[in-house]
Amino acid sequence: MTMSIAAHPDRLLPADGGTRAIARELLADVQELPIISPHGHVPADMIADDAAFEDPTALLITPDHYVTRLLHSAGVPLSDLGVGGKRVDSRTAWQRFAAAWPLFDGTASGYWLRSEFEHVFGLPASLVDSLPHGGADSVYDALTSKLSDPGFRPRNLFKEFSIEVLATTDDPLDSLEAHRRLAQDPSFSGRVLPTFRPDAYLTPSDPQWKVRVERLMAEASGGVGGFDGYLRALENRRHYFIEHGAVSADHGVRTPLTLQLDKTDAARLFDSALKGEATHAEQQAFEAHMLYQMARMSVEDGLVMTVHPGSYRNHHEPTFRQFGPDTGHDIPFAINYTESIRPVLQDFGTAKDFHLVLFTLDETVFSRELAPLAGFYPSVFVGAPWWFLDAPDAMLRFRSAVTETAGFSRTSGFIDDTRAFCSIPARHDASRRVEAAFLARLVSEHRISEDRAHELIIDIVDRAPRRVFKL
Amino acid sequence: MTMSIAAHPDRLLPADGGTRAIARELLADVQELPIISPHGHVPADMIADDAAFEDPTALLITPDHYVTRLLHSAGVPLSDLGVGGKRVDSRTAWQRFAAAWPLFDGTASGYWLRSEFEHVFGLPASLVDSLPHGGADSVYDALTSKLSDPGFRPRNLFKEFSIEVLATTDDPLDSLEAHRRLAQDPSFSGRVLPTFRPDAYLTPSDPQWKVRVERLMAEASGGVGGFDGYLRALENRRHYFIEHGAVSADHGVRTPLTLQLDKTDAARLFDSALKGEATHAEQQAFEAHMLYQMARMSVEDGLVMTVHPGSYRNHHEPTFRQFGPDTGHDIPFAINYTESIRPVLQDFGTAKDFHLVLFTLDETVFSRELAPLAGFYPSVFVGAPWWFLDAPDAMLRFRSAVTETAGFSRTSGFIDDTRAFCSIPARHDASRRVEAAFLARLVSEHRISEDRAHELIIDIVDRAPRRVFKL
Amino acid sequence: MTMSIAAHPDRLLPADGGTRAIARELLADVQELPIISPHGHVPADMIADDAAFEDPTALLITPDHYVTRLLHSAGVPLSDLGVGGKRVDSRTAWQRFAAAWPLFDGTASGYWLRSEFEHVFGLPASLVDSLPHGGADSVYDALTSKLSDPGFRPRNLFKEFSIEVLATTDDPLDSLEAHRRLAQDPSFSGRVLPTFRPDAYLTPSDPQWKVRVERLMAEASGGVGGFDGYLRALENRRHYFIEHGAVSADHGVRTPLTLQLDKTDAARLFDSALKGEATHAEQQAFEAHMLYQMARMSVEDGLVMTVHPGSYRNHHEPTFRQFGPDTGHDIPFAINYTESIRPVLQDFGTAKDFHLVLFTLDETVFSRELAPLAGFYPSVFVGAPWWFLDAPDAMLRFRSAVTETAGFSRTSGFIDDTRAFCSIPARHDASRRVEAAFLARLVSEHRISEDRAHELIIDIVDRAPRRVFKL
Repeated sequence: MTMSIAAHPDRLLPADGGTRAIARELLADVQELPIISPHGHVPADMIADDAAFEDPTALLITPDHYVTRLLHSAGVPLSDLGVGGKRVDSRTAWQRFAAAWPLFDGTASGYWLRSEFEHVFGLPASLVDSLPHGGADSVYDALTSKLSDPGFRPRNLFKEFSIEVLATTDDPLDSLEAHRRLAQDPSFSGRVLPTFRPDAYLTPSDPQWKVRVERLMAEASGGVGGFDGYLRALENRRHYFIEHGAVSADHGVRTPLTLQLDKTDAARLFDSALKGEATHAEQQAFEAHMLYQMARMSVEDGLVMTVHPGSYRNHHEPTFRQFGPDTGHDIPFAINYTESIRPVLQDFGTAKDFHLVLFTLDETVFSRELAPLAGFYPSVFVGAPWWFLDAPDAMLRFRSAVTETAGFSRTSGFIDDTRAFCSIPARHDASRRVEAAFLARLVSEHRISEDRAHELIIDIVDRAPRRVFKL
Repeated sequence: MTMSIAAHPDRLLPADGGTRAIARELLADVQELPIISPHGHVPADMIADDAAFEDPTALLITPDHYVTRLLHSAGVPLSDLGVGGKRVDSRTAWQRFAAAWPLFDGTASGYWLRSEFEHVFGLPASLVDSLPHGGADSVYDALTSKLSDPGFRPRNLFKEFSIEVLATTDDPLDSLEAHRRLAQDPSFSGRVLPTFRPDAYLTPSDPQWKVRVERLMAEASGGVGGFDGYLRALENRRHYFIEHGAVSADHGVRTPLTLQLDKTDAARLFDSALKGEATHAEQQAFEAHMLYQMARMSVEDGLVMTVHPGSYRNHHEPTFRQFGPDTGHDIPFAINYTESIRPVLQDFGTAKDFHLVLFTLDETVFSRELAPLAGFYPSVFVGAPWWFLDAPDAMLRFRSAVTETAGFSRTSGFIDDTRAFCSIPARHDASRRVEAAFLARLVSEHRISEDRAHELIIDIVDRAPRRVFKL
Repeated sequence: MTMSIAAHPDRLLPADGGTRAIARELLADVQELPIISPHGHVPADMIADDAAFEDPTALLITPDHYVTRLLHSAGVPLSDLGVGGKRVDSRTAWQRFAAAWPLFDGTASGYWLRSEFEHVFGLPASLVDSLPHGGADSVYDALTSKLSDPGFRPRNLFKEFSIEVLATTDDPLDSLEAHRRLAQDPSFSGRVLPTFRPDAYLTPSDPQWKVRVERLMAEASGGVGGFDGYLRALENRRHYFIEHGAVSADHGVRTPLTLQLDKTDAARLFDSALKGEATHAEQQAFEAHMLYQMARMSVEDGLVMTVHPGSYRNHHEPTFRQFGPDTGHDIPFAINYTESIRPVLQDFGTAKDFHLVLFTLDETVFSRELAPLAGFYPSVFVGAPWWFLDAPDAMLRFRSAVTETAGFSRTSGFIDDTRAFCSIPARHDASRRVEAAFLARLVSEHRISEDRAHELIIDIVDRAPRRVFKL
């Protein structure tokens, strides 16, 4: 009888026997450590409200664009999966997923889902295996039954998952009321922190930008007008976030281009952008300058600055029009950091307590740009592999590309970046296994001592995210 | 006594004992499966005529630019190898190759050649090893003797190689007479399919373009003139190819740039290009639009569209002038797909039954662009590693880069892309071994079950090419 | 009791037992071979003068920007480490280094330093391990005591390190007096060769360019003025270098862009650049043309041409102003060779005895551009992984990316590129171990025979640098 891959104690560990034995011991050091999740997309409301999850499809399929995208590539229309608010019969949508389950073999999403099924929901492996072979309904019913159990409410799962810190991602004008409720609730001991995500207010090429800026200034500029008022409003909202526990500001920019402008020029661009008179080049310049301003504000108010560039959002316009954003067709492209981020580093690269975490979907910058930058600038940390790259092989490529230049101290710690709450334990567990595998190889090759590996894995898993995100 | 590497049953399998054992069993599943070769450059005439091969040099050295290029890098003039139709003494050229044989250690070409020598021609390993040590003539004589054996005629080898489908690459005005002869010959049971390769008719920057277009239109536009006639002629020739068994159209473009133009603009560009009045930018725009038109035609007529971009053809002008194209100095460069191919995907990315196979010589796009594109668009398949990349390590990097995002179902299946007929079995065998090695590692790391691996390897080797190429 | 990683006989060899056993035997073939270092930055004066090294900090920390950069990233100001000529107390600086020693785990620098401590200075592993745990002073004292030993003078170390050839990097107007002294000294049997490094004289965008060119022409143009005199002066200084043993000219250009210009245009650009009237584009064109001219001169005088592009020098302007160049913030960026170097290859790619060694910090060009170029052009050799890439994993990625296309014969052999004299044995030893590891894997996978692996490792380690650098 073969053991389920999800349950196997050696999953994701290296095949070589000696190396695997070392990896096992390293893994044991960190398997019980709490989860620290300094960047992700779980809604704070969900935890504050603590309502039961609706149904298996609404929980596991519809909102997870990792899952719906691969189903879509196999010919399943997104409308059949409830994407974009389309009404579907939950069970029918689940059956479509179940039929396509074999497509997920070898993918990160398949690995996480299987882990959730077996470890969070306690389904037997044989039941999971039956998904494409007539077992869709049985799995659906088993999950539905679990979801009605009060133990499967978000707050209890939060505790069972051993989550210590969970950061959400929030609009600058969000009231953060859910965060406040959680912070003030003596029955809830976790930390749920907001993250300031201002992209939509910094991008004049977006047709909604003007309306958003006007709302922002009306609510937060303290009566000051023009570019000064705009900056003041952003600063004020950052302070509001900090008062509510925020430790970082996240920037999901198209490119990492930054630009220093003198105040007069920036103010002039702001005015002409508001009037709709800015050229495309002026819009880009303004956007690049605002990323520079965000760095300046982070230096002043201490919010860790994270940059997530390089994704062509909503690549398929017809899908975007029908189903909205975040529907599985954000496609990466090549970026450069060395020249783009230089204006920020010129002025703030050695600023006291400034933390700038640089992420990429373009692996080529790991060894070429990010490790060298983080290996010199005290402010720069290499963001963990993210999105399409937070999978075992990609994570190993990341460590291999970065470590020889920058060591372990200059990387951010794992980021789950997920809106799929129930996948959080599987994601962090996978990351810990991969870190153990990488360190075990270095030990096997006599490149670090086993003693140091035991210290390093704790630093990587636990201390790095606390240190980098000022937790 | 050591066994020849070409004969070793474990060649290309992973070193780790446990993983190798799994790989061996996976390999056993597919070792006897027929060869499906949906893209390559073997001439159909060769099989239709079934003439004996001329001599070892003419068969194995002169036409194989993988081989002549490395000899050239070592200082052997191409003229000494008979490239570009230069007259050489076949035996003398062979001796030059034999002296340079050690240069091929570790290369894909060296691996294939050794396999051919031992498995197709039955030479003992010790004789092959003697090539650079005085054995050139003995090997030459042994090969010559084999070539005179009627069993070494193309059609018999076709059968012995277990080739089920072999696609050729053909000029749109080719009569396809050889394909017809083969299809109508009851004594030949293989399928030899033409492939529509229209590049030369779509590239106004090519000095011969005008003449070619005029010939195309004279033969196939049905009397319609101008841009309409040009499109109609292309459509007509595609239908002619389909009637003769074609399943795909191949596009060896410089970049994957595509562009939608309205009909008036396209027609105007066509006219000015024919008059020689188009600027370089206009020529590029027209070319990008014609790649878009090819997608449109594929949607309409069902030919699978394959795109092979990113090679700087004929990099060394003096060599090109003396020896012609395909002489070993086509050099890859960086490409992007995310923006370039978007116009096609906007309009046809979700079109019913449209198959678009995207190849690359720039490995950076595998994880960054191709896996994400193929993981969303039902039309997009990631082309197998190709040309410089169809070698064991590169194929493993490909699987590692693509699988975690796109799984196994979104890749094209192996493409041998060769004009070296006798290398076909070695190439497919190598690919199967590498697939077994990759799957075996995932099994060892408990990322897929062994049962699924046995299903997946058959899908990868046999079902994928049939499915993707509509065979 | 665990053995020190620096002393472990299997360090850097593969974990798999069978593969490791093969690697051990391959390593044994080359472990005693002399060191050939055809490119580096050790000052010739140091060896000619043979003075005792000053102190541990001045020897191992201050001049090594690999080390100071990582300390800087951890918040240690460069001024505290004596960078840029700042006065520091050597022991205090050492203590700062010692406290940060754990940051170097997993890095190439950490590996080299540990090797130096244990193998060059004979410190016990336990003493090295104590560095961050109160042992800073003991290590400092132990090193200081060794440095006062006459056996630790440069010339004796040169002999103990088994260095046969060491190339330095020199200004074109350098008198090469130190090289002459060494060559004429019958008591010194090593070869210390100058390398012609003309960048500063070829870059009109550099504010010092005009002054340098005037000095160059005054000293070496033989009275000829204008562009002709400039070229003649460069040629004359190359000949002077050749007379003093130089075998190569090194070009640390920003990009590998080359450009052929006709003489009149080049002369016109030269004149306007000297007058400070050249535009940025004209400066770039002139620079690209001068790289072309350097190739032309190498074809004529036989100096091997090495190109080291792709580094954004002095990325952090404030650090540059305070501490000068080479202070740890040269950051790589993406380059292309296929188009950039083409003008040189068009005209000289097949020129007799021309050797052009192309280096990169952008790994993406290894499989995509360099292996294909070197696999065709007899002049082109792929430069060994360099700078941020001369570390075990990166060196394995290099071999994997290059070998399947270009084999072993088209690569340059190891380049230590270092100014850290005492790290030379550790760097070459590491390289030999990695080559053994790579070859052993190919043997294990039955891709090359064990016999050939034994021949190849000697070729790679010893014959390749002699052949490529014409030693």
